[in-house]
Amino acid sequence: MGKIVLLVGGVGGAKLAYGLYHTMPPEDLTVIVNTGDDFWHHGLRICPDLDTVMYTLSGLVDKTNGWGVANDTTHALDAMRRYNSDEWFRLGDKDIATHLLRTQWWHEGITLSEITRRLASALGISCTLLPMTNGEVPTIVHTQEYGTLGFQEYFVKHRWQPTITSLEYLGADETNPAPAVIRAIESADAVIIAPSNPWLSVRPILSLHGMTDLLISRDMPRIVVTPLIQGNAVKGPTAKLMGELGLSTTPTSIMTYYGAVINGFLGDSRDESVTSAPESVQIRFADTFMDSDEKRITLSKYILQWLTDWNAS
Amino acid sequence: MGKIVLLVGGVGGAKLAYGLYHTMPPEDLTVIVNTGDDFWHHGLRICPDLDTVMYTLSGLVDKTNGWGVANDTTHALDAMRRYNSDEWFRLGDKDIATHLLRTQWWHEGITLSEITRRLASALGISCTLLPMTNGEVPTIVHTQEYGTLGFQEYFVKHRWQPTITSLEYLGADETNPAPAVIRAIESADAVIIAPSNPWLSVRPILSLHGMTDLLISRDMPRIVVTPLIQGNAVKGPTAKLMGELGLSTTPTSIMTYYGAVINGFLGDSRDESVTSAPESVQIRFADTFMDSDEKRITLSKYILQWLTDWNAS
Repeated sequence: MGKIVLLVGGVGGAKLAYGLYHTMPPEDLTVIVNTGDDFWHHGLRICPDLDTVMYTLSGLVDKTNGWGVANDTTHALDAMRRYNSDEWFRLGDKDIATHLLRTQWWHEGITLSEITRRLASALGISCTLLPMTNGEVPTIVHTQEYGTLGFQEYFVKHRWQPTITSLEYLGADETNPAPAVIRAIESADAVIIAPSNPWLSVRPILSLHGMTDLLISRDMPRIVVTPLIQGNAVKGPTAKLMGELGLSTTPTSIMTYYGAVINGFLGDSRDESVTSAPESVQIRFADTFMDSDEKRITLSKYILQWLTDWNAS
Repeated sequence: MGKIVLLVGGVGGAKLAYGLYHTMPPEDLTVIVNTGDDFWHHGLRICPDLDTVMYTLSGLVDKTNGWGVANDTTHALDAMRRYNSDEWFRLGDKDIATHLLRTQWWHEGITLSEITRRLASALGISCTLLPMTNGEVPTIVHTQEYGTLGFQEYFVKHRWQPTITSLEYLGADETNPAPAVIRAIESADAVIIAPSNPWLSVRPILSLHGMTDLLISRDMPRIVVTPLIQGNAVKGPTAKLMGELGLSTTPTSIMTYYGAVINGFLGDSRDESVTSAPESVQIRFADTFMDSDEKRITLSKYILQWLTDWNAS
């Protein structure tokens, strides 16, 4: 099935990354990760989605949460609270190691792509893991209740409860994707968009300078895996956000949103009866609920088979 | 006995700070700490001597080492090693909390004096704890074996084994003491120099712009507590360093080194027979070996009594 590029956000995307990683030759897989969530916190450069994917692929991840390192402690965080510090972002002790090395290298002028390569390689990850860009493109959330919030303030501090009035991908259209990202898409045989939040996780990637045009220009399968099952997200604010944006939580809304970027849609089998697609989009259905490693792999095999069929037709 | 200023380095000085803190009204005690050892490590601003004194006064200190936080873990450090990082500086998880908050505030433009006040106050320390300066004045160590080393490289990485050819207090003579340091000395009734390493811990303080002149100008007891007992340091490289600098490891060498900065010398009672002092220096002897909290307090009481006698005479 050739070279595959997967666009992902955090927890949901990491599950599909895990499935593909264990189903296909890892050297043919490139995972491009949203960095719109990245932020500075206590002087540390924190990249939540990159870390989630890295911990998931390396097997270090805390499987209960879907993020963070398994069996991590919070001794540093507890000690910070002793200093009367208001700590709303969970920093595990092992997790801090990732942030410390990344921050040190960042200050030394090393690109986030290279930093990510070093970290992932040390953890034994054999596919290519890439930040969407080496620049800083923070996602800004405008809310009814709190005005403008940084993404992590919205998502973690306020547990995605505020009502979103609009989103901003600050500086995205003037910021280039990482060079390796462009090369990966140029040489890919297929692009898969993970069932990550289309507005919060995938759009930051698509908003980068030239990214949408680059994707559309490539004549290959460009498939999104539905982030909705029966009108709800498996986790996180996708459905809630769609409501706030005045959209119905249907597969059709998702396809319309992605527009010409996609030419394939993998819906959930539970939604087969309610889904209609434009002619330009091939459509299939599968069980997209990945609540076990086995189901991640089963879904990945289904996708890879589809790509084989696609290329044969 | 009025207001006392104590000049200290790390472990040895912290012991005397502890003794005085528990012997006199803490609001009359100002501890001025060497920051020549401070350095950037993994993007963190680390102040080893300030932390040692802070942890000692707050009772958090690891009493076996004399530095670091008691019962601390090294999960972050171990995880950094997993990333193939060469970790020669011990970072405890609880200790990292101190570095993270300090670094965040540092980047926000808050002075090290204010950062130190916040941290010490949150830990319930009721005397005044001050960094010698708000500037960066790194102590540079020139060695026979490795050429030029940063202080922590010399002290921790190479366990103070390299032979020192010379020392440099980079930028010290153009850097002002912290404003609160100047005020504390101007209003002090006595200055005590802790039994810290005169070259590595105390000289960085004395080398700051105007500092020596300020001390000499103040007509008050200015007493150094000997860092040597029977020609040896209780801990650390004082005697070794004196040998490398061609000095005999005697009380007289110490008094000569401090020159006009001091007018009092507290020698160790074991050295009474071998000690001779210039006329300008009052001299007394006591047991200066502080291997228990009780002995720290006993020594502190002795010093405070001496100051009372001094002022009465």
